Amino acid sequence: MTSPIAHGGRLDEARRLYPNAPQPWIDLSTGVNPHPYPLPAIAPEAWTRLPDDEAFAALEAAAHAAYRAPQAVAVIPGAGVQAFIQLLPRVFPARRVGVLGFTYAEHAACWSAAGAKVATVESIADLAGFDVAIVVNPNNPDGRVVSSRDLARLADEMTRKSGLLVVDESFVDFTPTHSVASLASLEGAIVLRSFGKAYGLAGLRLGFALCAPRRAERLRSALGPWAVSGPALAIGGRALSDARWLQAAAVASAMDAARLDSLLEQAGFGLMGGTALFRLVRHERAGDWFMRLCESGILPRAFPERPEWLRFGLPAGEAAWTRLTNALEIA
Amino acid sequence: MTSPIAHGGRLDEARRLYPNAPQPWIDLSTGVNPHPYPLPAIAPEAWTRLPDDEAFAALEAAAHAAYRAPQAVAVIPGAGVQAFIQLLPRVFPARRVGVLGFTYAEHAACWSAAGAKVATVESIADLAGFDVAIVVNPNNPDGRVVSSRDLARLADEMTRKSGLLVVDESFVDFTPTHSVASLASLEGAIVLRSFGKAYGLAGLRLGFALCAPRRAERLRSALGPWAVSGPALAIGGRALSDARWLQAAAVASAMDAARLDSLLEQAGFGLMGGTALFRLVRHERAGDWFMRLCESGILPRAFPERPEWLRFGLPAGEAAWTRLTNALEIA
Repeated sequence: MTSPIAHGGRLDEARRLYPNAPQPWIDLSTGVNPHPYPLPAIAPEAWTRLPDDEAFAALEAAAHAAYRAPQAVAVIPGAGVQAFIQLLPRVFPARRVGVLGFTYAEHAACWSAAGAKVATVESIADLAGFDVAIVVNPNNPDGRVVSSRDLARLADEMTRKSGLLVVDESFVDFTPTHSVASLASLEGAIVLRSFGKAYGLAGLRLGFALCAPRRAERLRSALGPWAVSGPALAIGGRALSDARWLQAAAVASAMDAARLDSLLEQAGFGLMGGTALFRLVRHERAGDWFMRLCESGILPRAFPERPEWLRFGLPAGEAAWTRLTNALEIA
Repeated sequence: MTSPIAHGGRLDEARRLYPNAPQPWIDLSTGVNPHPYPLPAIAPEAWTRLPDDEAFAALEAAAHAAYRAPQAVAVIPGAGVQAFIQLLPRVFPARRVGVLGFTYAEHAACWSAAGAKVATVESIADLAGFDVAIVVNPNNPDGRVVSSRDLARLADEMTRKSGLLVVDESFVDFTPTHSVASLASLEGAIVLRSFGKAYGLAGLRLGFALCAPRRAERLRSALGPWAVSGPALAIGGRALSDARWLQAAAVASAMDAARLDSLLEQAGFGLMGGTALFRLVRHERAGDWFMRLCESGILPRAFPERPEWLRFGLPAGEAAWTRLTNALEIA
């Protein structure tokens, strides 16, 4: 028996393990919007020149407005949220790190790699005792939302004791009222925002850290100059200024998520949660389902630590919906 | 009097300081090839999907072949050489760092920021006593080339004493016989290669570290997944497999460099050196020349620490050559 594939987006591995699956593969293993922001024309200089301060300032201003960050908050672009997840443990070293679990594994992995002692806790109330607290909000994979009030209380506590609350808002774009961007003005908080997921451009590598000026200076210094590509600066600035597109994408995504729930329920899966970009379900024979779906050329996300769970991203179009419906054997 | 602009590519600053300069500005302040590799068609998936292992493996194979790296050497892609310059002091901490000067300032700046004691030395022989030695080869800005034999000796010495020689080959692409990629198989050496400069695509953010497997593992772990954008993987892989383009670009660039030398000499500058992508000259009144050129909408590179020096990149076409000729007041 082949084991489930452990990380999202690993279509290459799926192809190797299931060489006879029908083509093309339908990758539902990530939480990336399958309807990307339409690529604008990109000026040749975005490719050829080193991006200059003006290009960075324009993107930062667009992100600052889109995320409704308070005036005093610095909005720092980097090559995806992952770039900041890699950087934070090195720039703000800490001994004891608490992660609100079960969640995206890279936070714990990067803090551990940097030598921190990482504990996973079940409740936000358990995070106050750590030097650094990590909350993915809304959470990946189950969509759990921690209230802004609880996060504000924790951010205040971290500020008081010179600790740090990291709120990873990679999946907040379609539910902006859940964002705590305003907390980023506190010394004890950093908010991370992804560009590629909601805008469907994960290959672009663009994300942001929102924080107070003193932390911002250290983060910028660690990132160095030209940490974001010219095309990412151009496309990101344009897309983040386009509130209408975001609003329409949020509605379309919510409708697709409801449609996906309905399919998965009919197939006998139990709904657990998720966001408008992915749905988490459980099934006693989730492992069997994973293999059957892969044999049909459809890749969901499995969780080795949670063998009864599967996570599904949104199909990209009617052909994909039909193949998923057939693979789920819904009459 | 306005002070010279300290960093290359700062066209935005030049525009502010010289608002009445004729348009468009001619940016000669960088060493980026003004004749970029023609952009191939980019598959939509390069933008929309997280780049997968296959995409990384394909780029690494292309770079491995292009750089003629020995089998055992790992070729690690990152978002430009600068990304590695930022990372090395954090991944391979050291106390005493020697830099062969006068050279690109970011190496010393990043090691200093990480707490190392950095000394600039004049001769390669003076580097053996340090924990980490940095050689930019060919050197920026003067084009000085250290012999492969001297570098091999230093790499051996560093390997013997568990030190590290970093050879920054950002400007070696057009003179590949100067490359010491073969030394990257030694534990005590890392070779850095830039993609954006020779291929004229600095905005893409792509560069490589070549090193032995044990160091490679630590570097890859610090970079994390998806450290290079989908478009960079696609374009880089294609361009690095195109030996004919590189050969033609090297010849064209060498001819332009000779033409630039001739212009600058006629204007009374003293030639100091450079590579086929930039020329370094000196003049007693280099500061005056800098301002006159800026007033003509032409931005060379000035060096606050070397007030008599100016560095010129290659003009992009006949209109730019004519404006430079006129600004240099050559009849």
